[in-house]
Amino acid sequence: MNFKMIRYTLGLILLFEAAFLMVPLVTSFFYIEKEWSSTLSILGTIALCIIAGMLCSYRRPQDSTLYSKDGFVIVALGWIVLSLFGALPFVFSGSIPNYIDALFETVSGFTTTGSSIVPKVSELPNSMLMWRSFTHWVGGMGVLVFIMAILPLSGAQNMHIMRAESPGPTVSKLVPHVKKTALILYAIYFVMTVIQFVLLLFGDMTPFDALNTAFATAGTGGFGFRDDSFLSFGAYSQVIVTIFMLLFSVNFNSYYLLLNRKFRAAINSEVKVFFAIVFVAIGIITASLLITETKGAETFGDALRHTAFTVASIISTTGFATLDFNVWPTIAKVTLVALMFIGACAGSTGGGFKVSRIIILFKGMIREVGSILRPRQVKKITVDGKAVSHEVTRSVNAYLVTYVLIFAVSFFLISFDNYAITEGSKLVTNFTAVAATVNNIGPGLDMVGPTVNFSFFNPFSKLVLIFNMLAGRLELLPMLILFSPTLWTDSFKHRKEKSTDEPYTADETDAQMHD
Amino acid sequence: MNFKMIRYTLGLILLFEAAFLMVPLVTSFFYIEKEWSSTLSILGTIALCIIAGMLCSYRRPQDSTLYSKDGFVIVALGWIVLSLFGALPFVFSGSIPNYIDALFETVSGFTTTGSSIVPKVSELPNSMLMWRSFTHWVGGMGVLVFIMAILPLSGAQNMHIMRAESPGPTVSKLVPHVKKTALILYAIYFVMTVIQFVLLLFGDMTPFDALNTAFATAGTGGFGFRDDSFLSFGAYSQVIVTIFMLLFSVNFNSYYLLLNRKFRAAINSEVKVFFAIVFVAIGIITASLLITETKGAETFGDALRHTAFTVASIISTTGFATLDFNVWPTIAKVTLVALMFIGACAGSTGGGFKVSRIIILFKGMIREVGSILRPRQVKKITVDGKAVSHEVTRSVNAYLVTYVLIFAVSFFLISFDNYAITEGSKLVTNFTAVAATVNNIGPGLDMVGPTVNFSFFNPFSKLVLIFNMLAGRLELLPMLILFSPTLWTDSFKHRKEKSTDEPYTADETDAQMHD
Repeated sequence: MNFKMIRYTLGLILLFEAAFLMVPLVTSFFYIEKEWSSTLSILGTIALCIIAGMLCSYRRPQDSTLYSKDGFVIVALGWIVLSLFGALPFVFSGSIPNYIDALFETVSGFTTTGSSIVPKVSELPNSMLMWRSFTHWVGGMGVLVFIMAILPLSGAQNMHIMRAESPGPTVSKLVPHVKKTALILYAIYFVMTVIQFVLLLFGDMTPFDALNTAFATAGTGGFGFRDDSFLSFGAYSQVIVTIFMLLFSVNFNSYYLLLNRKFRAAINSEVKVFFAIVFVAIGIITASLLITETKGAETFGDALRHTAFTVASIISTTGFATLDFNVWPTIAKVTLVALMFIGACAGSTGGGFKVSRIIILFKGMIREVGSILRPRQVKKITVDGKAVSHEVTRSVNAYLVTYVLIFAVSFFLISFDNYAITEGSKLVTNFTAVAATVNNIGPGLDMVGPTVNFSFFNPFSKLVLIFNMLAGRLELLPMLILFSPTLWTDSFKHRKEKSTDEPYTADETDAQMHD
Repeated sequence: MNFKMIRYTLGLILLFEAAFLMVPLVTSFFYIEKEWSSTLSILGTIALCIIAGMLCSYRRPQDSTLYSKDGFVIVALGWIVLSLFGALPFVFSGSIPNYIDALFETVSGFTTTGSSIVPKVSELPNSMLMWRSFTHWVGGMGVLVFIMAILPLSGAQNMHIMRAESPGPTVSKLVPHVKKTALILYAIYFVMTVIQFVLLLFGDMTPFDALNTAFATAGTGGFGFRDDSFLSFGAYSQVIVTIFMLLFSVNFNSYYLLLNRKFRAAINSEVKVFFAIVFVAIGIITASLLITETKGAETFGDALRHTAFTVASIISTTGFATLDFNVWPTIAKVTLVALMFIGACAGSTGGGFKVSRIIILFKGMIREVGSILRPRQVKKITVDGKAVSHEVTRSVNAYLVTYVLIFAVSFFLISFDNYAITEGSKLVTNFTAVAATVNNIGPGLDMVGPTVNFSFFNPFSKLVLIFNMLAGRLELLPMLILFSPTLWTDSFKHRKEKSTDEPYTADETDAQMHD
């Protein structure tokens, strides 16, 4: 492993974090009389980030070669370091005095989960609310992708980092250069955020509300800033948020294709399946709410609006809420749990299993049945007329296995929590707590429903859930690799030797991509 | 498809069912004064089976060629026909007047699930109790394997049937001939059942109790005949049942190897992992019961005995109960739910996902991580020193996908049940109802816990659960293939043509096996 390059990149990340902290710092100036302690704590954190960042990155390593595993390790450690420092303002300012709690909140922010341990968010200082929302925005598109878009890092090897940080089974480069691809993605992201911000100003939101909402929606994060999340906002704001939650769940490549007037390619099968699922879910839940005369959704208009908001919030893995869906009928809750697992489209800021992976798995199953019925016709899986390579199918299968395993082990581990013994049967709470964190959604059901929070878990359970959020956002492998003994034994053995593994050249990287 | 051969085999199955029904018929003679209506209803069903069986199998088709898909279709339809007729005695005798309910009970019997719709089993006639237990015994090792062991069916092509009916990722032939393999397996099965029966007679069981228990344990079924399942039996009986539930969860090949003094091969990694899981689960649950001072398990001895019984019952997918584990602490319930999914060893009579599949999936995941760390070293997965072929890995992956899909769709479908609307939130009930049926266990949690039953579901939900039980027992693909449009369009198109697919010869079949 290229330890020097890892150290250097971690240093860069900390310097960027110092820059990111300018957003809450500026916010705190607006409310300086009430929030001088927040201002100081943010300034202190910025100072720490700059010192640590400079120490790590003062000299650029001569050998900037990155192997595939280095990319995974940089991304995993990068996100951990980002969160470890990002939690400090909460602790220093006393907003969240316990460090594990602050770390939970920060990881929840960067991973765009939105699960909170804060009982009353309205009591947090405005600068802290802004920091929470802004971590969503930074984490949504990926902090390393951001750094790549800005800094002149080494060329083709960036692909390893991009692949490790971007969601979905394959990573498409929109244009031949990784750096330029990252820039285009961030440009689309930025413009869409601005549009949502402006549209929200026309409703009942203050600029502070609108900016927080736009950041948290763009990253499909879900941290609210009112105690009732979005219930007390008007219908106009709710509808705008609904629309943008769905828009940020679509593969950003589609927007690039739309801008280039490639309409047919933009509306690919993933987008079609995604919206088909959204419409079916809205139909089922709206009907179930009307039939059971659920409180707050008695009229067709109200039921449809709250259902659309909730469905968009869950499938996009944002996690905002208008009504407490914890009291909805069983079929509505089961539908929402299904959406939790499905998640958004690949290449969006949303989490979950991703629609494209489900399409590939489903087609693989059909092919397996077909291979028994017509043994002589061995067909390749195709999506949108293009063959899915054997490597992608294999990696999607491995993803499912890893996903199920991480899910099962975390569900098991948090069930040792002492709260679960004193509070009686907590299967739904624990199951949906894992589902809400590993899929980066935010709220679950029962004791982690939209009107409650995650503070009652013990520190060990919180660490498990923190791992889940990071694993879910980074698509499992980077976090898993950190726990592999092979990584560390290999690394220290070969530290001074030349690695047996060769870095990709630009050409090889290009050949490996699936567009 | 070879429709004639399918019809012929279904006829044979019905004739065998007539023979199976002799067991409850003889039982009814012992209690003839009280059970004359049961006697008549069994006789009527036997007559129907013989008539239908003769009509279907009066002439053996000239072309007895079976393709892989024919094997799957024969097994799927065979089990459906077996259950459709097997339900009749319950309906005719008035024990279970509703046909869907009777079918649910019969499918639950043959698939060795043990989920019941009968509120008080003690009120059923003895002959009906015996029929329920005997369906477990017949279904445990497989009815088609039984027919193969007895009748001189065509040679090598039997492998297709055996592969479709036997549990586990691969089918090993103990000896070169399929027929002889089936005979050996049934001989081991028979002898072990007799040993358990005899041992139980030394305790507090009547011969009727002991026979029922032995049948239901051997098939890892789980139908009880007392309203409290096994609580009111003595510790000796409970311990014997615990031991035999575990013994019937082990791959029967291991017993064959033990008989041939191949001790090292018999104790393979699947057996080791299986018992490791059992011991860890017993440790966790015993501790949790003692710490929470759970009723009935206050002393270490009681806690250990009840835990061992329950763990053996769930991981073997039998489903007997001594205590109501529905009131146990969360960690105990989560552990049991984990065991529900893990299931028994391949090649046993137990259900679930199977330990060997989990081993293969786990090793596949490790390899995937390894392929990033050491890209040049592409390793094959090995189990017990033997390489796992690409086809097996692929089929295990496809199995997981199919499993997750069937699980999710059934969970979704039964949540439309009107009971779920009137009874409030029923996520745990519905989730564990699906887990208990698709894994062929029997009881779940909450409203389908060990002290309650499945009768409250509406007929549609019951049909979904019936499908789950059959899909689980036949390892998903045979039932899924019945729903494939390709099967039916192909079949009618090619009905008179020669199929493009060639049957296996004996040599090819041998080459495909993994021992």
